[in-house]
Amino acid sequence: MENVSSEMNECIEECLRCYAMCTAAAMNHCLERGGEHVEPEHFRLMAACAEICRTAAHLMLISSPLHKEICAACASSCQNCAESCEALGDMEECVAACRSCAESCERITE
Amino acid sequence: MENVSSEMNECIEECLRCYAMCTAAAMNHCLERGGEHVEPEHFRLMAACAEICRTAAHLMLISSPLHKEICAACASSCQNCAESCEALGDMEECVAACRSCAESCERITE
Amino acid sequence: MENVSSEMNECIEECLRCYAMCTAAAMNHCLERGGEHVEPEHFRLMAACAEICRTAAHLMLISSPLHKEICAACASSCQNCAESCEALGDMEECVAACRSCAESCERITE
Amino acid sequence: MENVSSEMNECIEECLRCYAMCTAAAMNHCLERGGEHVEPEHFRLMAACAEICRTAAHLMLISSPLHKEICAACASSCQNCAESCEALGDMEECVAACRSCAESCERITE
Repeated sequence: MENVSSEMNECIEECLRCYAMCTAAAMNHCLERGGEHVEPEHFRLMAACAEICRTAAHLMLISSPLHKEICAACASSCQNCAESCEALGDMEECVAACRSCAESCERITE
Repeated sequence: MENVSSEMNECIEECLRCYAMCTAAAMNHCLERGGEHVEPEHFRLMAACAEICRTAAHLMLISSPLHKEICAACASSCQNCAESCEALGDMEECVAACRSCAESCERITE
Repeated sequence: MENVSSEMNECIEECLRCYAMCTAAAMNHCLERGGEHVEPEHFRLMAACAEICRTAAHLMLISSPLHKEICAACASSCQNCAESCEALGDMEECVAACRSCAESCERITE
Repeated sequence: MENVSSEMNECIEECLRCYAMCTAAAMNHCLERGGEHVEPEHFRLMAACAEICRTAAHLMLISSPLHKEICAACASSCQNCAESCEALGDMEECVAACRSCAESCERITE
């Protein structure tokens, strides 16, 4: 998109991909598995990660300077979510999306 | 993503792409051009299109049966936005994203 | 808010209240209770209701004519969510918020 | 809402009120006035403030510990938006909503 650096375009895509992955995984995989997949702490981490990723993408799309603070929060949210998904053992796609998004958000905040 | 048909996956991607395109175009291209680009009717069409695309994607991601009604509204919103952007003459990328999303949403609601 | 009828203002408030109620009830009460409270069909109804209420409010706030279609979908989503919550027996506040929002959305779409 | 302190409930309400005010003011008052009301910097501040308020409310509603970082960003966003609205001279309601929300967000982050 015009007016947006390639680094930021990549971060927007990573955030939207991670938002989509966390949302779909929580509301399909986790809900259908049940048990520790719907344990409040894990499920909240996924819901928070999805929301923050969605908002980080939005702030970059509107060229708001506040995206830096939100991308920093997003990077830490993605790391927490990746760790929680890794501990469950069957959420590799979500772990990968979170780690990749965290790296991209960290580069943006440098 | 698991549990989701390839047709729905494609529609989710179209909706997120159109959301991103309308948001960035409104908040960068239109705001910076000014004049008829920030005329209330045009600008509201773009903002409404962005919001409905974002929500249509979300309802598909959570596997809600209500996505059909929202995708139908999304298709008509995208058509309206495409026409308004086409009349301005310098928003081809946005026109293309809206038309492509409208077609994808129509297929989902069949 | 200026430019907005009192009927629409009331509907915006109902939608935001119902969004807040469904979100908080799903992510606190339901997750902590577990069992049938996190059964996929119930939980998805709550998540879809929250999202549609949030979007219906947004479209009214931006004065988009598309709010009518979304408010119609919102009314039906709220009815479904109210019935699912009623069957669980311990979610009276959520039932009341959904029924009140459904009525307000129906008036808007008349 | 259950599980939520009265201080947090108040902050959720302030964030939703400020989100609604900034969204409606930008998309009605500012678009219809035109001129400096749709100058990119001002309009982006309003759009960013609306989005961050909406997300801060969401994270509190889902009981995510990340709400602290987002409420801190929200407080600074509201201050910036209040100053930009104050300079325009005819947006007192928006100024008041932003200042009140900023104070509430600051108390939450202490």
